[in-house]
Amino acid sequence: MIKIAIDAMGGDNAPDAIIRGTTKALKLNNNIEIYLYGKKDLIDKAIKNDNVSSDIIKRINIINCSEVIGFDESPTVAIKTKKDSSIVVACNDLKQGKVDAIVSAGSSGALLVCGTLIVGRIKGIERPAFGIIVPSEMGNFLLIDCGANADCKPNYINQFALIGSVYYREMFNKENPVVKLLNIGTEEEKGNLLIKEANDLLKQNTNINYKGYAESRDAIFGSCDVLVSDGFSGNIFLKTFEGTAKFILKNLKQVFKKNIFTILGYLLIKSNFKGLINKFDYKKHGGAPILGLNKIIIKVHGNTDGEEIVYAINQAQDFVQNNVNDRIINNIKE
Amino acid sequence: MIKIAIDAMGGDNAPDAIIRGTTKALKLNNNIEIYLYGKKDLIDKAIKNDNVSSDIIKRINIINCSEVIGFDESPTVAIKTKKDSSIVVACNDLKQGKVDAIVSAGSSGALLVCGTLIVGRIKGIERPAFGIIVPSEMGNFLLIDCGANADCKPNYINQFALIGSVYYREMFNKENPVVKLLNIGTEEEKGNLLIKEANDLLKQNTNINYKGYAESRDAIFGSCDVLVSDGFSGNIFLKTFEGTAKFILKNLKQVFKKNIFTILGYLLIKSNFKGLINKFDYKKHGGAPILGLNKIIIKVHGNTDGEEIVYAINQAQDFVQNNVNDRIINNIKE
Repeated sequence: MIKIAIDAMGGDNAPDAIIRGTTKALKLNNNIEIYLYGKKDLIDKAIKNDNVSSDIIKRINIINCSEVIGFDESPTVAIKTKKDSSIVVACNDLKQGKVDAIVSAGSSGALLVCGTLIVGRIKGIERPAFGIIVPSEMGNFLLIDCGANADCKPNYINQFALIGSVYYREMFNKENPVVKLLNIGTEEEKGNLLIKEANDLLKQNTNINYKGYAESRDAIFGSCDVLVSDGFSGNIFLKTFEGTAKFILKNLKQVFKKNIFTILGYLLIKSNFKGLINKFDYKKHGGAPILGLNKIIIKVHGNTDGEEIVYAINQAQDFVQNNVNDRIINNIKE
Repeated sequence: MIKIAIDAMGGDNAPDAIIRGTTKALKLNNNIEIYLYGKKDLIDKAIKNDNVSSDIIKRINIINCSEVIGFDESPTVAIKTKKDSSIVVACNDLKQGKVDAIVSAGSSGALLVCGTLIVGRIKGIERPAFGIIVPSEMGNFLLIDCGANADCKPNYINQFALIGSVYYREMFNKENPVVKLLNIGTEEEKGNLLIKEANDLLKQNTNINYKGYAESRDAIFGSCDVLVSDGFSGNIFLKTFEGTAKFILKNLKQVFKKNIFTILGYLLIKSNFKGLINKFDYKKHGGAPILGLNKIIIKVHGNTDGEEIVYAINQAQDFVQNNVNDRIINNIKE
């Protein structure tokens, strides 16, 4: 049984949406046991509302935590003052091996700070990074770092490439995933100083299958398995991708609603169109793991309705079962 | 008559596509006179192929240039060795006032270097920047810098904001355009060091209507008129926007072709769908001006089929007629 900690208090729709996702994951997956961190009375109520069957309840443990870290709080202050918050308590339990992984829709900053200070970094990794699976023409790719480190050194980027490469290989069963570096051109002289220096390090890294620079559109059209980036540019990429997709699909819906002919047209393509919408639905790709820590923490969008939690729990289970961290550690040693 | 220089040799489909766009612009617009820079024999042949009428030909002047700067050449080397290239000769004529503006689909690097070294920067502006009009939910916004300066200082970004603000006001007739700074979050503490320092300068800049940070999706959904950025992040934004739009529309076309029902569905929404495609067609928004130089140079996509040239010529004319540069200079002095 893999023990997964769930931050029941994290996210805009907590705890109801979180509990809904968790119990759904438990129904689909017999190999996991869940530890819910948060206010016991609220959790009990949410479980009751969700009509959870008794055999599912047997695999749920509740750890009462009296405090919650908000999205607007300073993470470094919160970790010191809110010792009994769901994130801090879960991170302590993760460190001590009481649970194997954490899934949370709470504050990214708080998760990063607690992950780094409590769970700790893998030896040899200077900064943990957010990874996220982005849909592409050829299937998908992992974008790392997509927002944990706004200011990077070349060596951090080199380490992100290694962590991302091992993660992608283990999670998607692909040997020698192709790694590319996000840049504004593919010619050698293109890019800023940081990216050029990172490129020099990546070329010398024999633990990854590095193939040089990628522009955004190359990655979107499937030129790599791992797109490595500094956290600032990676986040700009991610939010532009999401924002553009949302913008186009919104405009498309307006086209469909235009008149009786377009409505009829929509009805004819509806089922195929829904497939396209699903392809761009990041929820189906799980959450964003914080990679580079001694244990895994998976961040889910704050506005989750619970669906993402199901995928993130499976993702956490795969990560633990495939010993991804051990493999990262072995690669660093080589 | 406004005199517009056209780099007849710039771009993948030069000179034919360039001539096609130029003559179309001449037909639509009686207030311009065109100066074509490039190999006279090739230009003459393209004009002949295009069946240009004699009254249009009267407004075309050909300046024979024996050399062409390629996309793969080092701009700093090319400017020294290819003195008789279309870009270098046109920039010299622009400097001397023989023409009022340049439109080119040639190498961005060569245009930037020639623009800076030959035409010269506006006093007080340390670096020229590429601006581009991006479609948004509310209409459009100007993204500046979208790729000229991969490495920026906070002060450059502050200057881009000013140039962009004046440009947007004059070109779109909008008083006090809202300026926002591209960032990975909207809270004060978000961003990298460069962006935080630029934010401090922008807040003190009384010549612009600065409203703080914007995430990519905020800008796409219309929160600003001018999105200011360092050249690296701005280019990541632009290429991700273009790449995502291309990716989705490609997938959508596949949905339409799926079966007889989807084809019928497509036929019903076709005319409205084409409107959506046009909305995302950057060609309709003209080219990317290099802003911050003493005169205006407009860069058009290298793969233009000529259509963009028409819009870019109008854009150049508007720029000259509205004395945009004089207004930038006056704002800097204040």
